[in-house]
Parts: sequence; structure tokens; C-alpha cells
Amino acid sequence: MDKKWVYLFKEGEASKKPLLGGKGANLAEMSNIGLPVPPGFTVTTEACTEFYNVGEKLSDEMIEEIYRGMKDIENQTGKKFGDLESPLLVSVRSGAAISMPGMMDTILNLGLNDDSVIGLSKSTENERFAYDSYRRFIQMFSDVVLEIPKYLFENVMDDFKENNNYENDTELTPENLKDIVNEFKNIYREETGKDFPQDPKEQLLMAIEAVFKSWNNPRAISYRNIHELDHKMGTAVNVQSMVFGNMGDTSGTGVAFTRNPATGEKKLFGEFLINAQGEDVVAGIRTPKDIQELKDIMPDVFNQFKETCEKLEYHYKDMQDIEFTIEKGKLYFLQTRTGKRTAQAALKVAVDMEIEEVISVEEALMRIEPKSLDQLLHPTFDSETMEKANPIAKGLPASPGAASGKVYFTAEKAVTAAKNGEDVILVRKETSPEDIEGMHAAKGILTSRGGMTSHAAVVARGMGKCCVAGCESIKVNEELKTFSVDGMKFNEGDMISLDGTTGKVYEGKIKTVEPSLSGDFAKLMEWADQTRTLGVRTNADTPKDSNTALKFGAEGIGLCRTEHMFFDEERVPAVRRMILADTKEEREKALEIILPMQKEDFIGIYKEMKGKPVTIRLLDPPLHEFLPHEEEDIKKLAETMEVSVSKLKEIINDLEEFNPMLGHRGCRLAVTYPEIAEMQTRAIMEAAVEVSEEGISVKPEIMIPLVGMEEEMNFVKNIVKKTVEEVLEEKNVILEYLIGTMIEIPRASLIADDIAKEAEFFSFGTNDLTQMGFGFSRDDAGKFIGEYLDKEILPKDPFQSIDQKGIGKLVEMGVELGRRTRPDLKIGVCGEHGGDPDSIDFFHRVGLDYVSCSPYRVPIARLAAAQSAIRNRK
Amino acid sequence: MDKKWVYLFKEGEASKKPLLGGKGANLAEMSNIGLPVPPGFTVTTEACTEFYNVGEKLSDEMIEEIYRGMKDIENQTGKKFGDLESPLLVSVRSGAAISMPGMMDTILNLGLNDDSVIGLSKSTENERFAYDSYRRFIQMFSDVVLEIPKYLFENVMDDFKENNNYENDTELTPENLKDIVNEFKNIYREETGKDFPQDPKEQLLMAIEAVFKSWNNPRAISYRNIHELDHKMGTAVNVQSMVFGNMGDTSGTGVAFTRNPATGEKKLFGEFLINAQGEDVVAGIRTPKDIQELKDIMPDVFNQFKETCEKLEYHYKDMQDIEFTIEKGKLYFLQTRTGKRTAQAALKVAVDMEIEEVISVEEALMRIEPKSLDQLLHPTFDSETMEKANPIAKGLPASPGAASGKVYFTAEKAVTAAKNGEDVILVRKETSPEDIEGMHAAKGILTSRGGMTSHAAVVARGMGKCCVAGCESIKVNEELKTFSVDGMKFNEGDMISLDGTTGKVYEGKIKTVEPSLSGDFAKLMEWADQTRTLGVRTNADTPKDSNTALKFGAEGIGLCRTEHMFFDEERVPAVRRMILADTKEEREKALEIILPMQKEDFIGIYKEMKGKPVTIRLLDPPLHEFLPHEEEDIKKLAETMEVSVSKLKEIINDLEEFNPMLGHRGCRLAVTYPEIAEMQTRAIMEAAVEVSEEGISVKPEIMIPLVGMEEEMNFVKNIVKKTVEEVLEEKNVILEYLIGTMIEIPRASLIADDIAKEAEFFSFGTNDLTQMGFGFSRDDAGKFIGEYLDKEILPKDPFQSIDQKGIGKLVEMGVELGRRTRPDLKIGVCGEHGGDPDSIDFFHRVGLDYVSCSPYRVPIARLAAAQSAIRNRK
Repeated sequence: MDKKWVYLFKEGEASKKPLLGGKGANLAEMSNIGLPVPPGFTVTTEACTEFYNVGEKLSDEMIEEIYRGMKDIENQTGKKFGDLESPLLVSVRSGAAISMPGMMDTILNLGLNDDSVIGLSKSTENERFAYDSYRRFIQMFSDVVLEIPKYLFENVMDDFKENNNYENDTELTPENLKDIVNEFKNIYREETGKDFPQDPKEQLLMAIEAVFKSWNNPRAISYRNIHELDHKMGTAVNVQSMVFGNMGDTSGTGVAFTRNPATGEKKLFGEFLINAQGEDVVAGIRTPKDIQELKDIMPDVFNQFKETCEKLEYHYKDMQDIEFTIEKGKLYFLQTRTGKRTAQAALKVAVDMEIEEVISVEEALMRIEPKSLDQLLHPTFDSETMEKANPIAKGLPASPGAASGKVYFTAEKAVTAAKNGEDVILVRKETSPEDIEGMHAAKGILTSRGGMTSHAAVVARGMGKCCVAGCESIKVNEELKTFSVDGMKFNEGDMISLDGTTGKVYEGKIKTVEPSLSGDFAKLMEWADQTRTLGVRTNADTPKDSNTALKFGAEGIGLCRTEHMFFDEERVPAVRRMILADTKEEREKALEIILPMQKEDFIGIYKEMKGKPVTIRLLDPPLHEFLPHEEEDIKKLAETMEVSVSKLKEIINDLEEFNPMLGHRGCRLAVTYPEIAEMQTRAIMEAAVEVSEEGISVKPEIMIPLVGMEEEMNFVKNIVKKTVEEVLEEKNVILEYLIGTMIEIPRASLIADDIAKEAEFFSFGTNDLTQMGFGFSRDDAGKFIGEYLDKEILPKDPFQSIDQKGIGKLVEMGVELGRRTRPDLKIGVCGEHGGDPDSIDFFHRVGLDYVSCSPYRVPIARLAAAQSAIRNRK
Repeated sequence: MDKKWVYLFKEGEASKKPLLGGKGANLAEMSNIGLPVPPGFTVTTEACTEFYNVGEKLSDEMIEEIYRGMKDIENQTGKKFGDLESPLLVSVRSGAAISMPGMMDTILNLGLNDDSVIGLSKSTENERFAYDSYRRFIQMFSDVVLEIPKYLFENVMDDFKENNNYENDTELTPENLKDIVNEFKNIYREETGKDFPQDPKEQLLMAIEAVFKSWNNPRAISYRNIHELDHKMGTAVNVQSMVFGNMGDTSGTGVAFTRNPATGEKKLFGEFLINAQGEDVVAGIRTPKDIQELKDIMPDVFNQFKETCEKLEYHYKDMQDIEFTIEKGKLYFLQTRTGKRTAQAALKVAVDMEIEEVISVEEALMRIEPKSLDQLLHPTFDSETMEKANPIAKGLPASPGAASGKVYFTAEKAVTAAKNGEDVILVRKETSPEDIEGMHAAKGILTSRGGMTSHAAVVARGMGKCCVAGCESIKVNEELKTFSVDGMKFNEGDMISLDGTTGKVYEGKIKTVEPSLSGDFAKLMEWADQTRTLGVRTNADTPKDSNTALKFGAEGIGLCRTEHMFFDEERVPAVRRMILADTKEEREKALEIILPMQKEDFIGIYKEMKGKPVTIRLLDPPLHEFLPHEEEDIKKLAETMEVSVSKLKEIINDLEEFNPMLGHRGCRLAVTYPEIAEMQTRAIMEAAVEVSEEGISVKPEIMIPLVGMEEEMNFVKNIVKKTVEEVLEEKNVILEYLIGTMIEIPRASLIADDIAKEAEFFSFGTNDLTQMGFGFSRDDAGKFIGEYLDKEILPKDPFQSIDQKGIGKLVEMGVELGRRTRPDLKIGVCGEHGGDPDSIDFFHRVGLDYVSCSPYRVPIARLAAAQSAIRNRK
């Protein structure tokens, strides 16, 4: 066997990750592109496997190769292991191919002993530092390599401080530290029966063995079990020479970004300290200098740094976050990684780098987390004011944005207050369709119940309005018009602030900042549109929503819900009259009142959409949603309807359902009350005729919801078709139209081939498909879904991101069966998942034609669709 | 072309149905087995097609063959067409291969004219009859062949009656009828411009053409369109000589069954009239004689009849329902068909015929409609008393049997009344689990809401208790304790009767008759058990239910629901304490009180089942079902729990759900409250250990409900397994057990391969699978499912019989994927469909191991399973 057990950094490369581990491969890569990295080597993962094969021992060949590696480091640094003058110190770190918590991490300053500590003291001109490093090394080595309890060492430290009346470790003198070192060595001897190893080579071998052994400690094993990782992979060990930034005024240390991580500006950004160690920067005792000042202090080093940074960016093709140390005028790179950045910076960096020809358009597109675009579309809190704000609770970040306003507990009051010019936050246990007007009037919505897809969350996102949902810690008393949280009480009119991006709720007012969409944003979107193949439509129920969505780039309306129109204050009386009608005639009379209003809605939307496709869904919710439930409202309605309160209550009671989700709604309404579908169809078509006569082309797509059977689709389609033809005959025009259905009942997916005989398009309603496929009511699931996520029974909330394995199977079946019958069947998805990037990727892969999402999600969907196209092209 | 257009009856056979039509083929079959059938012939369906091909004309060949057929009839009967002495009269009937309404049906007495009417008068010695027949013939011929409006003829009749002050047609004298005949002929002349055809051959050809033309009348075309029948099939025409039972004392007519259709006894059963026509028997003016008396009156005819009946039975291998006529001492069979019979008769006939070696065991098994067995297992109303009873409403026949009792509106009152010895009918809008005790106490249950699988229906069937559900016409006022129907009002204590087999509700008391299971029943079941391959288990929650099911032949328990045990009066306080507990410790304390009680339940069931498998399902319903909802009950509970009413209400409110069906229940409870699952597992296992120590073998099958994810199954399984192992260790015994799951969430079917990694058995919960797969809440679907059935959108209620196309696909996937992971996976089905014959056939075909149904359905399932085995063997 002539395996190579040890690789010098200069011998490795990024692609050797399985052999060298992630850390080793990265150090090699940095060395190879000419970065000044402190020299070192990697003991391979194969060595780890061999270590176990031969009974947990380092073979002679390995030891020999390790020593050869050490020799190389000595040659490169001019330092010597254990030297009295210029001692070589190294770090020893584990590094598996896949980053894995639970294993031994790091030993620093290995190589210190009673001799070399003197050398370190001399070379750093800092005796205190040298002995402090030595006692830390003994402590770390004892803990990590020999598992000597930490508290033994801590006790010694505590005793010293107590005896000297010190508050902090920093008060310990060099003399104290020398004494502590001795005491530590005593502990070591007592616990192990041996002296603390003075031979650096012995220290090194012991440390390497400890890393290998840590591969099989219980925490690491259980981690691999949970994540189904191969126990045989093994870990590598990295040995690297230490460098010191505290060796006088020609030394220093710092961190820097190659570009500004907040704005994306192309200019070095960061800070440094002269004659200091990394931890000093973090500790904040001394104020670091701006990286630009290094130019004046050490112009050569600065230039070298700047050039290397450019090289690094070019090599890694992304903005880098760099840790560096200058040891006696010599620059070392300790770490480089892709820098974290704000959404704004990410956008600018990606677009700039494409212009600089560092990356391609495709790479630029892949660089942006689609969801992060949300940050660019909504108001945010002014960061200064926010720092002083007092967070009082945290709920689900249900709809992004930031808002401050006065608390109101009913939709009615919210509307009135807003009319009076107040900023309103609507607070409810949970919202219902009756609250729509109040939600419209409010700046933000806060609910104590419901999940990410509760009514409040869905509607708020649709409106682009900030919402914190399911904030369980606040207790809302709607009767008394108060809410309490953590012993604090808030009354009507009290000021609070909501951050819908984080889910946090604050006491009082916080200043907000409006978003401004820069030219980079437009550029990125343009690239996305050129790249993607999946269409992006929007869910919009009003001309205003349609307009917003168009600005964000929507290519049509994928879902126009007609029930929201029914809740309008002016209309709801007619709607209620219709519901309470005893005969078909009475019902038709009420519907006649609604018809012209609905028609106006559609005219507004068609005009706004200027010929882009508009899919309109027939009435979906159960009728009882339109009836009042409060005693007082019932009384009022009874009066206007001229029926007794008890009679009205009986009707309301009769309409109530045990499981409204699975009840009398969707196309089932059209089956039992065809006249509703007829009225809606008439409104849709009359509006279309009117608008098209003004020269705007319209091709309505009429969508029948909740279909589960071919016969059902056929039945309702016939009603719709008959009305359409009637209108067209009356108006004596020819107009194209489509009649399709939502696939949102599991059975519809299972028999999609049959349904496609009748339906001219499909739109997946994956919200309901998820509810029924999982048996989860989205309004109730809040009670246990959190626990499911915590216990890792669910990897993620299936209402936020489609469950590809289960519900996704229904989608795949629906697509495949549907197209088997009708190869050119147009298929989309409307509902929450249409704005979720992972879901969009799935929809792209199963071959949908478009996704439809709320207006504010449209840019996210455009980018996610582009990324999908790129990802699946490869 | 030398096609044969006309077949004499003796030339045809049953297998020639496509050519001769259903009626023609049957007449041929009867003739061929030597039955004295009045002679005749069939003009083929091919002739019909040809008729259309050549422009709606009968070809010369056809006419020639028809005349040849007529000649044959004349030869056989010795009568002559249009004869003055002994005229031959014929009937002309249509008869397609598939029976089809909308076409011309029948012309009788064709051949009558001014001459032959005299002949008929002579031969029947009944002038009135002859002229009445003639005027009927003219009327029928004019209407059917020439579409002359009926009212013209009716007006004439009315005028005659008015002028003579007659009330009924029967008062018309022969002279009147002669005048009417003349008037009718005048009408014919006025309407057609021609004389009524006196040539019988002309009459015949016109009639045959009319039948062929009726194949394409609009009603017939639309019928074929709806049923997707081929328009090119054509219809045949049957021409048969008429016979008359009213030709004096050697003539007669009657109907008879070859065996007693009520009891099945092997003895001719029926009645006859001498010198009468068929319609006289039906009219009931003369009292018919028992068929046995024919022996004395016409011994030869009787013997011939008896022998022929035996021959017929042997030929058709089933009890026959026969129409016969004796014309001047000559016996004719006009019709034979399989006789309708009671369930009891069906059973006896099938078993007897097997013993008589007429049919095989398989045939005997196939002979019984499984559902009809229900009639043999439940009390029924005494038929005499029932005739006088007044039905007031009709609901769904939710659970068979008959019961009378006093009306009570609450479970509590029902229990008290029953304790006082009263027979109770529990009347509710809909029952809930809180009503269980009341349902137990009642003789029958009546609800105004809910479908065939509503709570009331399911539980009542489980208890074998009569139930009428979803009786929408009764309006229950639970507050006032009354119900009203059709203006009548019933108060607490009023007597009503329910027939759960028909769904009818009666005013007052009706006597009931208890069932007695004869030896034939046992015999049939024995054959079923030898034949079937599908296992049959029962759903049983108590030792009593288990005992009933065992008597009915259950091979184990497929579903033991543990929630019913929680509703016991003694236990519910502890259950509520558990639900309201703030901490895990409090909850565990409450569970400790329940543990020994649950254990006793299981001990009782294990002992009853004597080693047969018992599948126990962990707690399934949402916890709020156990809490009170009435103001008063809440107050009471608040007192015992020592919390404030408002606090308690808040908790109850918090637990309430929008869609409990899709809420926090099933294994989700075990995820959030593992201690409940632990307690139940402990009770199951401790009971098993105790019973097995008494020498009764027990192998508990612990079933985790509502699983939708592999991780969920794994999580709960681990809780259960740990507890099982704990108990076994404590008791120091080894005991086999299984941990499996219900497949009732659509997603579970979709990923059954993953779930089978964890589950040792599957049991399909097709109720919930149907609810979620269709998006139908069974408690709410009553509102629209009726309309769906009426409008033929649904072929049948999917809660009664599994929807094989959609939900069945989920079952198939579940079976296939599950066995892919675990080839020997035991798979059953529990729930309503397990007792439905069509569903059982499906379950047999997809390869389930067993079905489980309520005790009273067990015999039905055994028979249905046997039939499935036979059907699918072929």
C-alpha cells in the first residue's frame, strides 16, 4: 500500500474535499491561488479510516509523513517546533467532508512548552500573552485530548482571582499566570499520572489521534444517524502554523469584506487593529480603524491586501468575507468565505459582477435568494429608531413589511379610525372574511391564532400588507377590547409596531422607511424574464391589486376570487338576501342586484390588465361565511330582512357546518344553486363584451372550483356554457373564452384524465390539496404543526412550501393524467405555493405552464422561475 | 344476400339475443325446452337495420317470410287470421337486445275486423268481450301505428257514458260497444282519409313497420344517447298468437310461483280463476282459487303444469314466477321469470336447491343478495299491525331493524327512562359522542341531520340498533323537547316507531317480531366460509359487541375504538381533568385514574375473543369532543375542577376547531401528549399479560390512527414500543404484539412504501379516506349529496359503497406501495365499507387480507366475500 496520508496545503485542491475534508480542501485552494496562507498540511480522511482499521493507532508511515509535513512548515516559516527563540506553534483542527457538529474542533498554540513559552514571550515582547497562551493551551489540550474535567482548571483560576481580589481574568499578572501554568501542570499529572508532554511532536500526535477518535464520539455518531451520513467517511486533520498580530507595530489583525455588505458598493469594507490579536477586535476594548486607513500605515501591505482581495473575488466569483493577520509586516490570510450581505447588497453585487464580466447572467441570477427580494418591496423600520424599541412578543412573520399604528379590535372601528386619518393596527384572535374591509383600512394586522396560511396571513400577503399571525403569547379579549402580553395590557388606541418580516411586535411607534427599487432590480428582473420558461401570474381580486401586480411584472391573473367582492359593504345585504331566499325566484331577484356590481368589478380588472389573461373563479366559500354571527348583527339583519330573530338564527344555525372546509362550497354551490353561477358568468361575459367593444382584447378564463368528479365538472360547465352563449347571442358578438377547473380535491388529481375531458385548463389549488391530502385544517394546524416542526416530524410547513413527496405526487398525477387526455392542457397553480421558490422549482420540473401568486410575490416568482430553468438546464 | 329475416320461436334460442332481442330470445328458449308457449315468430333486429337501409320499407323477402311465419302459427293453432269461426289473433311487441323504454311496446288482439269479431264472440261465448276487444284494438292501433290523438277516442267513450249515466266503462253494453266501434272507425277515416284496415295481413305489416319506426322516435334516441347505446343495433318484433282464458269452464288463467316466495317452501304457490282473463285476477272482483285446487278441477292440466314447473325450475335453476292461461283445456305458458322472494325464502330456496342437486354450492352462494341477510338478523315489524300504522316521515335507512318507543331528546333522559323500564326512541338533530350512553339505552335512534355515515348511523349500526338518520322533514327543537313534522307535533314521551330498514317513521306503537336464525342460515354461512379467501373481522369496543360479533362469525376484531370507553359516565371526569391539565404531571395523574379502567375493558374483550386477533386503535377524536358545551354542564364541571366558569370557557373555546375533522386528533394527539398513548399502551399490554397468564393467548395489534408521514409513524411507534417493552420487562414475560397504522389520510396512501417501513400492518380507514379524498365532510355532506345523487353526478353515496375509481385508486396505491416495502404486510379495512358487498368485492380484488365491519354486518361480509371469491375465480 502506498497511500499518501498527508497533503501539504500546496499539494491539495478544492476538488479533493472527500479526501481532505472541507476545511483542508479550502486551505489548499487558498494556498494554490497564491494567497499568503500560514503554511500547514492535512492528514487525510483515509488516514482516519486506516486509524480505525488498525485498532486506533497512527501507523509508522503516517507518523513519518506528519513529521515531514512539520519539517516543511518549519522550512517555510523559519521557525522551529519548541524553539527558545522563534518557536513554531500550530493549530490542530478537525475537518470532515461534510461539516459536522459534535466532533472535536480546535486546539490552538500547540507546540508550547516550558522552553518555547520563553521564545514566544521574546518574539511577541509580551510575557503575559505568552504565559496566558500556555495556560490556555494546557487547559484546552487537557480537556479535548484527555477529557480532564474543565472545572478543575476553572477552580484554580477562580481561587487566584479571589485571593487577589480580581474581578476579571485580564487582571491576572504574568507572575500569576506562571503560577497558574504550574498548577495546571499539576492537575494534568494528578489526573493522568504523567507529566504534561513537553515534546511538541508528542503533543501533535496526541492531538491528531484525539481528532480521529472524536469521529466516533456519541454525539457525532448520533448526528450522522439522524442525517443518514456514512460512518465510514472519516475526518481529516488540519495542522497549520499560528501567526500573531500582536508582535509590535508592524503586526496587526482585521476582518474585511471585498465590497460593502450593506449596500454592495465596490470598495473594501472592514476594520483592523495594530498590534493585536483577532479576539481583541471582537472584544471591543480598543476601537478598530477603518480598513482604508491601512493604506497610510502600511501602504505595501494594503496594496498587497487589496490586490489579493481582487484576486480572491475573481477566483471565488463572489464578494468575500476575509480574516487576516499581519505578523511583523507579513500579511496572512486566515480565512476567506462568501460574505453575508443584505438583499440590497446581494442585488448590486450580482448585477455589478455581471457587468464586470466576473460572472455570467445565469450566475448573477443564481446569486440572489429569491425570498430576499421581499425586503426590497416593503417598508422597513428605520434601523436607529428600532434599536431603541421594546419588543413585546414574537409571532409568525406572516406578511412582510413594517407598520406602526393604533390598536383596534374590530374591522368596523378600524375602518372608522382610518377614515379619521389614524394609522391602524387591526388586532384579532383570527380574521374572517367579514374583516376584509378592516384589513384594507389597517396598516398592519396582528392575530393571536392561525398559521402562515391562516386567513389573516393569506389575505394580508395578497394585499402586500404587513402581518404578524399566530402570536400565541398575546391574549386578545375582543369583548373588552384589550390584549395582554407578559403582564402588560394594551387598550384600544394604544400604539404598537409590527415587523412582518421577523414576526416581532413592538410597543410604541417606530419610524418606517419606504422602499425604492433601484435600476439593478429592474436589470435582474429583465434577466429573469429572459431566462425563465415558467409563466408568472398573480392572484388579484381588484383593479388596484391588478395594477400593483402589473408593476411587479405579472403576466396575467391566475386567480381572481369573486367572494371578496361579495363582502363589500354595499353588496353584502343583497348577498344575504340571496342566501336567505326561500325560492329560486327570490334568489334570482337578489342576484339581479349583485349582477351590475360584479360586472363593474370585472370591467375594472379587464381594463387594468389590458388584454392579459384573466382567470376568474366562481364563488367558492360556504354561504354561511356571509352571514353575521354576533347577536347584534343578527338582530339588525332580521329587521332589514323582516324575519324574526329566532327564525333567522335557525337559518344561520342550519347553514353552519361541522367542517366547512369539507362542506357545501365551491362547485357544490353551483350544483345546488345554478343561478349563482349563472349570474357570475353573466357578469364575467357582459363585462368582457363591453371592454372588448372599447378595443381592449379580453379572453376570460372561467374557473370552476373544488371539482372532484367528471360529472360535476360537466354539470357546472354546462350551466356556465349555456349562460356564456346566451350573452354572446344577446350581444351578437363572438368572443373567445375558456372554461377550466381548479384541481384542489385529491380525487380530482386521481381522475384528472376524466376531468380533462371537460376542463379546458387546470389550476392546482395546492392549499386545499395540502389540507385534504395531509388532513390538516390550515386554521387549526397551528396547534400542533409547531411541535411537528420542532420534533422534525415535518421538515417544513407544508402550507409554506409544497410537500413534494406526498402532495407533489398528486400534482404530478394530475399533470400527467390531464395531459394524457388533452396534450395541450394549460396548467397552472394558484395559491400560496405559487410564490415559494422551492415549490416553484417543483412546479417547473413537473411541467406546469405558470404559477400565480400574490402581487408582492411576483418578483420572487420571476427570479425563482429563472433559477429553476437554469438549475434544470444543467 | 340470403339473410334470414324471420325466426319461428322454435328456431331461436337464448343465445341469439342480439339478433332476436331479449323478448324474442326468451320466447324461443321457452318454446325449445318444450313449454307450451303460444306459437309465434320474431322479425330480427337485422331486418330493422335493413328496413332503415332501404328507406323505411319492408322488403319483399321480409314480407314473404312474415307470411310464412303466420302460416306456421295458423297451422299450430288451427285458427285462421280473420276467420268467422275461430279467428287467429296475435300480439305484436317490440324487443331490442337491451330493454329500452321510449319505444312502441305492444299491440294486442291484432287480426280483429268486422268478421273476426263475430268469430271471437262465438268462440268466447262473450259478445261484450269481443266488441270491447275490437274497440280497444282500433284505439291502440290508431294511437300506436298512426299517432291519432288518444283524446278523440276518449271523448267518444265519455259521451257514451254521460248519455247513459254510466259511472264506469264496465257498464257499457255490447250494443254500446258495437256503436263505439263504428264511431272509432269513423274517427280513423276522418284522421287518415282511409278506412280502418280490414285485412289482418295489412294490419300486421303496418304494426311491424310502426315498431321499426319507433326505434328512431325522439324519446328512444335520447335514451340511447344518455346510456351510450349504439343507434345501429335496431329492434326485433315479436308476433305471437293470443290465447284466451275466458272461453268457458275448461279455460282459465293464473299466476304461480314454483315455491313459496315468502317462506321458500317447495310447493307450488299461486292462484287462478276459471273462465277469466289475466286482468280479472288482478282486478280482484272475483276471488281467485289456490293453485292447489286446480288438481281437483283439471287434474291433467294441473299435472302438466306441475311437471312443467319442475322442468322450468330445473332449466332455469331457480324458483320461477309464471303466468299461464288455459284455453279450452289447453295449457299455455305466457311468461316465466325468476321469482321475487323474501330474504328468508331466498335462503331456503338456495340451500334446498343445492341439496336437490339442482345448483352447486357456488351457485347457491351467488343466489343470495348479501345485504338481504340483514332482514334475518334484526327484529321486524309485525306485518299486520304495520299495515294499519301511519307513516309520518321518511329518512335514511341508517341501521336496520324495527323499534317502537317513547320519544326522548337528550341522552340523559333516555338513560333514565330506560332505567324505568320504558322503551325509548332517542331523537336528536345529530348525535355526538356524548350521546353514546343514551344511544345504548334507546331501542332506536332518529336524527334530522347527517347521512348514512353520520355519527348516529355508524354507532347505531355498530350497536345493531335501529336508526333512521337525516330525516330532514322532522324539525327537532331540542330546547323545547319537541319535534314537528308536516304540522304534527310530538312531545317528550309520545310514542313513535322506526323502521331502520326502510327509513320510515310511524306514529304510535307497532308490534315487533324477533328474528330466528334457521339451520339454512348456518349452512349458507358454512359454505361461505369454505369459499371465501378474505378474512372477516368486526369493529367492537365492548365485550358485549365482541360476543355478538363472534356469534355472527367474526374471526377477530379489526377495530376496537378506545374513545367510546372514555365517554363512560364514571370516567369522563378523569378524562376532562386530563384534558384541562396545565402540566404533564397533572395530566399523568389523571391518566393514572383512567388506566385501570381501560385495562379492565381490554381484559373483558380479550377474554371474550379467546385468542382471536384484537386490533386496538389509540385515542382518535379531538379532545374537545370530551368537554361539555351546554352552559349548565360547563358550570358543573367548573365547580368540580375548581376553576372559574370563564376560565373553563376560555379553555373550551381555545380547544374548539374550525374543521375538527382535519384538526388536532389521531396520532397528532400522541405527538403532543405522548403520555396518553403511553397510558393506553400500558393498559393494552398489562391486560394482555394478565389474560395470557390465565392461559388465553393474546397477540395485541396496536393501531396508530391518522398517520400521514413516515416520521410521524416512527415517532409514535417509538413511544408505544418503549412502553410495551417496559411493561413486558416489569412483568418479565415475552408476548408477541404488532404495531401498525390506519391508512386514512390520502398522503398515507401516496407514501405507503415509506410508512410500511415502520408499520407492521395497515388498516384502511376508508371513511376518512373518502372524506378527505372527496373533500366531503360526512356530517355536512347531507346538504348536497342528495342532490348529487338525484342529478346523477354521483352514481351512489361514496360513504356507503367505496368509490372504486377515485378513492379506490388510493387504496390500490396503498396496497401496492405497502407490499413493495413489506411483501407480507397484513392489510385490512375497518369502517363502514367493510360491510358493503360491492366494496368487499373491490377489497377482495385489490388483495386485502380482511375486512372489518360492525357485528351485524359480519354475515353479510362473509357471504359477500364468498361471492367475490367465486366471481373472481371465473
